[in-house]
Amino acid sequence: MTQPRHLLSITDLGAEGIQDVMRLTDSFVEVSERAIPKVPALRGKTVVSLFFEDSTRTRLSFETAAKRLSADTMNFSVSTSSVKKGESLRDTVETIEAMGVDAMVVRHSGAGVPWQVAAWSRGSSVINAGDGWHEHPTQALLDCYTIRQQRQSLEGLRIAIVGDIRHSRVARSDVLAFSALGASVTLVAPPTLLPPSLAGWPAEVSHDLDEVAPKCDVVYLLRLQRERMQEALLPSLREYTATYGLTRARARLLKDDALIMHPGPVNRGVEIAAEVADRPNSVITRQVANGVAVRMAVLFLLIGSGVDLAVH
Amino acid sequence: MTQPRHLLSITDLGAEGIQDVMRLTDSFVEVSERAIPKVPALRGKTVVSLFFEDSTRTRLSFETAAKRLSADTMNFSVSTSSVKKGESLRDTVETIEAMGVDAMVVRHSGAGVPWQVAAWSRGSSVINAGDGWHEHPTQALLDCYTIRQQRQSLEGLRIAIVGDIRHSRVARSDVLAFSALGASVTLVAPPTLLPPSLAGWPAEVSHDLDEVAPKCDVVYLLRLQRERMQEALLPSLREYTATYGLTRARARLLKDDALIMHPGPVNRGVEIAAEVADRPNSVITRQVANGVAVRMAVLFLLIGSGVDLAVH
Amino acid sequence: MTQPRHLLSITDLGAEGIQDVMRLTDSFVEVSERAIPKVPALRGKTVVSLFFEDSTRTRLSFETAAKRLSADTMNFSVSTSSVKKGESLRDTVETIEAMGVDAMVVRHSGAGVPWQVAAWSRGSSVINAGDGWHEHPTQALLDCYTIRQQRQSLEGLRIAIVGDIRHSRVARSDVLAFSALGASVTLVAPPTLLPPSLAGWPAEVSHDLDEVAPKCDVVYLLRLQRERMQEALLPSLREYTATYGLTRARARLLKDDALIMHPGPVNRGVEIAAEVADRPNSVITRQVANGVAVRMAVLFLLIGSGVDLAVH
Repeated sequence: MTQPRHLLSITDLGAEGIQDVMRLTDSFVEVSERAIPKVPALRGKTVVSLFFEDSTRTRLSFETAAKRLSADTMNFSVSTSSVKKGESLRDTVETIEAMGVDAMVVRHSGAGVPWQVAAWSRGSSVINAGDGWHEHPTQALLDCYTIRQQRQSLEGLRIAIVGDIRHSRVARSDVLAFSALGASVTLVAPPTLLPPSLAGWPAEVSHDLDEVAPKCDVVYLLRLQRERMQEALLPSLREYTATYGLTRARARLLKDDALIMHPGPVNRGVEIAAEVADRPNSVITRQVANGVAVRMAVLFLLIGSGVDLAVH
Repeated sequence: MTQPRHLLSITDLGAEGIQDVMRLTDSFVEVSERAIPKVPALRGKTVVSLFFEDSTRTRLSFETAAKRLSADTMNFSVSTSSVKKGESLRDTVETIEAMGVDAMVVRHSGAGVPWQVAAWSRGSSVINAGDGWHEHPTQALLDCYTIRQQRQSLEGLRIAIVGDIRHSRVARSDVLAFSALGASVTLVAPPTLLPPSLAGWPAEVSHDLDEVAPKCDVVYLLRLQRERMQEALLPSLREYTATYGLTRARARLLKDDALIMHPGPVNRGVEIAAEVADRPNSVITRQVANGVAVRMAVLFLLIGSGVDLAVH
Repeated sequence: MTQPRHLLSITDLGAEGIQDVMRLTDSFVEVSERAIPKVPALRGKTVVSLFFEDSTRTRLSFETAAKRLSADTMNFSVSTSSVKKGESLRDTVETIEAMGVDAMVVRHSGAGVPWQVAAWSRGSSVINAGDGWHEHPTQALLDCYTIRQQRQSLEGLRIAIVGDIRHSRVARSDVLAFSALGASVTLVAPPTLLPPSLAGWPAEVSHDLDEVAPKCDVVYLLRLQRERMQEALLPSLREYTATYGLTRARARLLKDDALIMHPGPVNRGVEIAAEVADRPNSVITRQVANGVAVRMAVLFLLIGSGVDLAVH
């Protein structure tokens, strides 16, 4: 396994790289189940969260992952306003790196910022923890891992991604990862919530969830931001749920073993009926748990001292 | 000693449980006095602060306690606004738990929230760090411990709790704990600052601090929130201090060895004269110090791996 | 080497004390270059950041230093508003100390606050991390160290400090430290950005950077706060840069080996041309890196358990 320096896009890894991360994740899932779920793999390494956009969940997941690897963690949370000029962001990155940091976990509302940070960094690794509506590679990795855990492989699976594709970095990274691993993806959304162009998205499109649902092995529901209403992209929440929500009635159309997934946090009763979210084939909580192990694998892969996994 | 899962109310423990915590605290006070005040008891465990209401003191006390036990700590501080709907709070709790957390320390302005959190949690322990005007059990435990440290036992002691009983979770938990350990409690407050009903409060009531003061073994002064003035529950700070403050003149009425206590932060010159707060029988700072050891005991009791205290 | 309790002003150390810190820093620079840049020197010690003014850089630098020494770290960040009354600040300090803290790193917009904190503290060490326009001793130490690293000694060097001297705690601490170590310092600034009196500043003054530049061994540029424009202390940024900025044209006046320094964050194009900031003899990034090692030395000196440096 080669040791990449950064994880910016899911395409950096390719199918083989994704499989490498999956196998590494198996080891860290096993670590997470131990009585003392901690290994010294990254002792003395420092992982800094550079979050220019609030996301406590993702930050805590990375922080938990780093601590289980015995790394030191630090937070640098900034409102975008105080670093809005390019020079300042560069200065921030160079300063943090000069303190002797090993990895920077970057979340920013601007697409492409993690690439900029990587270009400025001299020795440390950069992990994209979500940039604008662009990419969120560790989310895609944990989604792949969760499906693989339930179905052994994604090869040949049919996966529907439902909802606000246009404003979703999760959708973009998932489509790339799922299709790289051999799944066929259908995007299900109203025209207003699809990107202006779908060139480069290896996916089909449908506007009819009732038609797609019975054929799916996985239904992946995206979070609906309530501001889409104000932007007049949607008539009403109620109509959205009636057409694109996984209601109890619509859930009956699914195959018995179809997996239900969501990146969280769920708007219960909007994207998915509360009762459906709690069914056994809903793996939403498992996605969260796997998120920690996947991020341990990514950190270990990027800044671990060797290819061999010294966790046993 | 049985191992409870949660600490929500002081009544969960009962007299015997409180005594168990006191004995365990003795060990951790001893640990705290070592050159390296740290034991590996909770190595690999993760303690998360879920504070929906700001309280740096309580949060730092729990964090210090967890770190001295070698646990990893994380913070999840949220403004109530962003999680005001029941579903979101539940989602937050389930997400954090799914990351593999062992204990959640919950502070919330809504009475009863820690019980809700405990109901949603599947495996982790929940500690109530203050819910609305309802309960604050670890404060009561540290108060009991501080009195016991000075007087060996609370049995037969007379304790006055003075001030804004109505809006105080400290008062409620203290009354329950002090009376469980055999002390007799008198609440001293103006009628506007007493709860509408005192059913279930094992305490007497007085409106005359001058009459109560000479008989007390402990005077416990509550913090006065300045907003009570605006709510017209009090005529003026000055009148409050004249009637219910521990002024220098009133302090002369106390027994020589009467203990002076306060949960902090003190409004010097309001609840208590600055000079009185600094006297030797004022144990306010000792309460803070004991708070760390008591919280070590509680964390160890709830998520430690065994009943034997492996700290020696 | 005697063990001081606090580091409040650079004058507390004197020339000999500064040299002691420099020698100790050599060891910690060596530690920082190891594969696992961590030593157990402060295991079980707790270092708290008490920042009443936002400064993520300085806070992260101290936090990194403390973690590399294996200390536990905690943050207490407060808006000045919530602790504006003297009693509250005192109460905060006493509470934090009662929890068993070893060192408090204090940043405050009010000159002298760290001295107050030191007066209230009973056993813990206080480090001034910047008080108003007054002092910032660890910045001065890292500046001395960076110059010494490049030139062996400051003895006989000519150092220009350029810019907003009046509102700069860095300038004040640097002047005291540089001159204590035998350098001669020239302050270069417009009259509006000089302090009302320069009594006690062992430095010359000039208003002509073109005249000073060719003679300097070090040019130290201060950060220009944009609010100085609004306060009418400066006509325009452009004019400031033309007169006091290290433009490309002006950089040609410097000796070939003159060092260029800045406390960061740099306003590129204002105090210094972007291209000049990136030259090899610009040691701005090195200042940041040395900042961690210098703060390790200071923490070790104040709260380490002995004079011998047990890092080998």
